[in-house]
Amino acid sequence: VKKILFPVLIVMITWQASAQDVQKIIGSIFNSALTDRSAYNNLEYLCKHAGGRLAGSQASVRAIEYTREALLRAGADTVWLQEVTVPHWVRGYERCTISSAVNGSKNLSIAALGLSAGTDTLGISAGVLEVQSINELKNLDKSKIEGKIVFFNRPVDNTLVNTFSGYGNAVDQRISGASEASRFGAIAVIVRSVTQFIDDYPHTGVTHYEGGVKKIPAIAVSTMGADLLSNWLKSDPSLMVHMVSTCTTLPDTVSWNVIGELRGTSKKNEFITVGGHLDSWDITEGAHDDAGGCVQSIEVLRLLKSTGTRISRSVRAVMFMNEEMSASGGREYADIAAEKGELHYAAIESDRGVMSPRGFGFDAEGSRLKRLKSLSKYFLPYNIRDFDKGGSGADVGPLKELGTLQIGYIPDIQRYFAYHHSVNDTFEQVNIRELQLGSAAIASLVYLLDHFNY
Amino acid sequence: VKKILFPVLIVMITWQASAQDVQKIIGSIFNSALTDRSAYNNLEYLCKHAGGRLAGSQASVRAIEYTREALLRAGADTVWLQEVTVPHWVRGYERCTISSAVNGSKNLSIAALGLSAGTDTLGISAGVLEVQSINELKNLDKSKIEGKIVFFNRPVDNTLVNTFSGYGNAVDQRISGASEASRFGAIAVIVRSVTQFIDDYPHTGVTHYEGGVKKIPAIAVSTMGADLLSNWLKSDPSLMVHMVSTCTTLPDTVSWNVIGELRGTSKKNEFITVGGHLDSWDITEGAHDDAGGCVQSIEVLRLLKSTGTRISRSVRAVMFMNEEMSASGGREYADIAAEKGELHYAAIESDRGVMSPRGFGFDAEGSRLKRLKSLSKYFLPYNIRDFDKGGSGADVGPLKELGTLQIGYIPDIQRYFAYHHSVNDTFEQVNIRELQLGSAAIASLVYLLDHFNY
Repeated sequence: VKKILFPVLIVMITWQASAQDVQKIIGSIFNSALTDRSAYNNLEYLCKHAGGRLAGSQASVRAIEYTREALLRAGADTVWLQEVTVPHWVRGYERCTISSAVNGSKNLSIAALGLSAGTDTLGISAGVLEVQSINELKNLDKSKIEGKIVFFNRPVDNTLVNTFSGYGNAVDQRISGASEASRFGAIAVIVRSVTQFIDDYPHTGVTHYEGGVKKIPAIAVSTMGADLLSNWLKSDPSLMVHMVSTCTTLPDTVSWNVIGELRGTSKKNEFITVGGHLDSWDITEGAHDDAGGCVQSIEVLRLLKSTGTRISRSVRAVMFMNEEMSASGGREYADIAAEKGELHYAAIESDRGVMSPRGFGFDAEGSRLKRLKSLSKYFLPYNIRDFDKGGSGADVGPLKELGTLQIGYIPDIQRYFAYHHSVNDTFEQVNIRELQLGSAAIASLVYLLDHFNY
Repeated sequence: VKKILFPVLIVMITWQASAQDVQKIIGSIFNSALTDRSAYNNLEYLCKHAGGRLAGSQASVRAIEYTREALLRAGADTVWLQEVTVPHWVRGYERCTISSAVNGSKNLSIAALGLSAGTDTLGISAGVLEVQSINELKNLDKSKIEGKIVFFNRPVDNTLVNTFSGYGNAVDQRISGASEASRFGAIAVIVRSVTQFIDDYPHTGVTHYEGGVKKIPAIAVSTMGADLLSNWLKSDPSLMVHMVSTCTTLPDTVSWNVIGELRGTSKKNEFITVGGHLDSWDITEGAHDDAGGCVQSIEVLRLLKSTGTRISRSVRAVMFMNEEMSASGGREYADIAAEKGELHYAAIESDRGVMSPRGFGFDAEGSRLKRLKSLSKYFLPYNIRDFDKGGSGADVGPLKELGTLQIGYIPDIQRYFAYHHSVNDTFEQVNIRELQLGSAAIASLVYLLDHFNY
């Protein structure tokens, strides 16, 4: 019996010591994150001094310069900018007034959709046609649509616990509504803000016109404004709307991804990327979307460096430019990686807000997924339990073509769309501990991915 | 083979149908919660129209009357008030100024501790002795303490992921600091606010004097104020503080628990209690602490009633009075239950804020705990996974003497102490979905506890 037990015990003791060491390293990462304010201070700068960081704007340039320096402060061995072509859309004066013989007159809380066409300074006036979906529109007589402002008013389904599913099921109105309404002769569209919440903030976002259609103006209206407009239409279907939105689209311009790299100890030419997007909509500080993801990515470098955690691969924190309008920063990053023949081992995107960490979504299958899910045991002391199959995000997504393991960081997502793409997405809406725990979770996963080899 | 398989299949189909039915009922509860605003509207009333609901105050009376009506609206079969004796402490004028020959003069953000003794209107002036703990104080020469204002300045340990543990490890300074300092001849105490966050809000809370000690004034100072005072003391140990706090303790008075009952379908004389506390500190709307727990408890009745969920036992939603100063409401509720010989099957307390639901803590052991934990499977569609051993809370705690299963509702707790006992605990800091999901989780657990018998 002794002869058999002895080697078994040795193996068990060795394995236990190793698991304990791993847990200890993760502990040091979390302790460092929870007692350091630099990520929070970086967030404050991006929100308060470089808010409204739409690609092509002056604010985005301030953010590029600031994060370049922040990456150096965090301990990156090299920091560089990567040129990216971006659209150059500029919001104008905007106003939307309902005039009803029955109910009187009312200004709505609105914001032009990104990349939308504008009106002239006098604006346009027309009657309103309310629909719940693009399909409903397609089944109407063209004569009912011609010359009208189409009002897309399908609310987000609040019973969906996954708020991103609710968003995903309603966002087609915002992305394709203008293009589809234009085909049938509409002269503009008003889209209900795509959010679960009843508030008076317009939540903007991008709209896309299909090739060949006339680009008609498109604005988002707050959910409270949408409810009001819908109610007024019930008592007065012939009410008129006057809309001004003098936004313009200038020629494409140049911007940059900001990249900081911590050189690996042995596999220097293999890369793990962590990233968020540096641009935001122009009307918002973009704290949750996605200054938070950027400062967490910078903090990953600081955490690995300051705790002395040895990572064999090189770790890159990337501030992607122009996720919001056409995701050209993520595309460029992957294209250059492919050109250089770089080996990108894994990529983690943080772009779902800065709430308490819940886990990660892995774009993997079978036994690989099972092994990745088993990493959740190291996160139990931090109550981070949701290790599931899932996707990454718009920015690291193109790296999939290089065979890179795609991972999405998943915080609690219940309140995200209260902020998303609106003036409500402020620094004040981020809790420092929720930010810190997220950075620590991502840094810990980087360490584990490197340590265990997937 | 057919002979064996047939009954096995029947049993499997029956069992599956049952599990599906259970899941369907829980689904209907969540759907109803996520599409109804009455709990949120009730919360708004309690925060905005009956804020500062300290036991014995006029605001608390408005809250009692409002929740009595809200319970009837929610569908309670019976609603009644239960008399509770409560302390009657009233805040006065309060100010605290540092005067330093080196640094000048500065007012601190302060709030008297609940039940603390006051000063006269002229206040008191004295030098300041900073300590990190009661133990440090006890080891000092009494001569160093006499005539001084003792400043307890031990921060909460931010590396503890469980914020309630961090709070628990630091709150002794607030609860016993004044009493202990008084023994050594101090004339007042200033206590660093017990919170993980650096802000300029004083976070108040109760203090207790041991019998026989002189009751000396006690105030909380904001964490920013505490850091400032500590820094000034380093450059000028002889600085003086002038403190005014004209709070008074009046004779005990009468208040009420508010109880709404939904009669059980068969075991009418067995009870499941869900509850929160209706009182709050006087300086705050008390949205997270604990108007949220109250409106969630009311909502549990509405959800069970409106979805037609059959519960064999009677379900009581209880708004406990005076949790903050001496928890006399919870004590009274259990005492009356004991007097009447009532059978209290289970009790769930919601008093950890209104963040996204994470799970429940069960005060159970062995196979019973294991069975309770297995209920988590029904909550997987809602990402509610933390079913662990744990406690209930100050209000339903006394029911343990009757053998009642004690359960605490556990939301995400990272940002709770940013609000706790401060003016920052407002209606605006509550997200409607996080509130709704919590109500649905508690109502679902009530149904499951009743359905499966633990």
